[in-house]
Amino acid sequence: MRGRRIIEAVPTNSPQMGTTGNYRYHIAARDVDFTGCPALAAVTDHVLSAAGDDADRNGFGVTDLNESNLTWVLSRFCMEFVRYPARDETLCVSTWVSEVGRMMTTRNFVITAPGGDAIGAAVSNWAMIDLGTRRAVDITSRPGYAEAVVNEPSPISAPERLGSARPDKTAVRRVMYSDIDFNRHTNTLRYLGMMLDMLPLEYMERGTDIRRMDMNFLHESRYGDTLTVAWQKGDKQLFEIRRGDQTVCRAQIEWKQ
Amino acid sequence: MRGRRIIEAVPTNSPQMGTTGNYRYHIAARDVDFTGCPALAAVTDHVLSAAGDDADRNGFGVTDLNESNLTWVLSRFCMEFVRYPARDETLCVSTWVSEVGRMMTTRNFVITAPGGDAIGAAVSNWAMIDLGTRRAVDITSRPGYAEAVVNEPSPISAPERLGSARPDKTAVRRVMYSDIDFNRHTNTLRYLGMMLDMLPLEYMERGTDIRRMDMNFLHESRYGDTLTVAWQKGDKQLFEIRRGDQTVCRAQIEWKQ
Repeated sequence: MRGRRIIEAVPTNSPQMGTTGNYRYHIAARDVDFTGCPALAAVTDHVLSAAGDDADRNGFGVTDLNESNLTWVLSRFCMEFVRYPARDETLCVSTWVSEVGRMMTTRNFVITAPGGDAIGAAVSNWAMIDLGTRRAVDITSRPGYAEAVVNEPSPISAPERLGSARPDKTAVRRVMYSDIDFNRHTNTLRYLGMMLDMLPLEYMERGTDIRRMDMNFLHESRYGDTLTVAWQKGDKQLFEIRRGDQTVCRAQIEWKQ
Repeated sequence: MRGRRIIEAVPTNSPQMGTTGNYRYHIAARDVDFTGCPALAAVTDHVLSAAGDDADRNGFGVTDLNESNLTWVLSRFCMEFVRYPARDETLCVSTWVSEVGRMMTTRNFVITAPGGDAIGAAVSNWAMIDLGTRRAVDITSRPGYAEAVVNEPSPISAPERLGSARPDKTAVRRVMYSDIDFNRHTNTLRYLGMMLDMLPLEYMERGTDIRRMDMNFLHESRYGDTLTVAWQKGDKQLFEIRRGDQTVCRAQIEWKQ
């Protein structure tokens, strides 16, 4: 990611149809892990919250979709940092939809620090599913969605399609009440937690200085499912969560050296 | 709790020395569990966030305390609802310190719904500890703290001192990276999650319609600790988390019938 500078992070009208939404989030003490840095799950939560808030603003948030028995499902996600957020910073997360297809839409994010520097960016791909059939529905059939597109490309390369992990270490986790979300499937942040729990604590003591994270969500997992979490060591840490023969999700995280 | 009505929830100066802080929190889709109601952990998080935000405002938040190698530790907590919060509501959490002693301070909360009705309330007791020795320090020795007291009593009865649970069901949980907070001990919300995970999902399907919750925190637990979570069935659900012979925390939750 280039160290793009945003002088003022206020709601802006693009010359195109849609608009970029700007949301402020404070990194509080409760967002910090034992290293003194914001936990990766907390930063991811703030970014995904901006997605939810901006979809609400545009009239196609989860609450609006639920009225039509539809919901959003995150399919792929990636995030990069030029400089990792710090405790007590108030970040501005700017977000816009850059692409919409029948099966998938792309939502982008730029994370700006108080001084105006863009310190991070993220790209997400979402599918719209029917809550009854759990199958994808045509996003373009939803009125108003295409009008939300902003003609501004993604700030970083798209989420990588990750391969299978060769497990150096595995753990078994059962999906419990506190792991599931309003969609009745395991929450994105809990998957991330299950993956980071695989790393020795000494590894985390190096600090949460992350260069890039990629996540792929392939299948849903649900209450009572028994999951196997695998970790493959390397320059980039690769994780895979499986339910029996089925891959539920994969992630790759690259810390700065 | 009486159904007290607050017409306007804006920062107010009390005739006493301290002031009540008012903080707004939106119950977003991500705060909702599979029942469609806000998860108890999410509501508790909003209330405890108000405590953190208000302590910051008064200059004795965790970040300020950390500079003196001190931190706050939650000792007891209780919360009651006349009417449980609903999805998409923006709640106002009003909070004030009503008592301060050498070993313990009391912070109160009133949760107000958009129409101005007080729908819930909470009381918390906190100790201040030294991060090095993990021992309590005299709160009154901290300059400015006594001046923050507001002469307004707690809105509900103080947190109950809970007895030991006779286990009808137990589970073993290991404390992992994603369970610990900036204090390096298990996060309050993770304890609550571990307890609610003991309940059969059919139980939770009745909805998160809670009358009162009490929590007692007796000892810290840390990364790598093996915990036993016990659940005692009854009109009130009683939970106890132990590490070997030592009780870590207890909770009692009463759902509406």
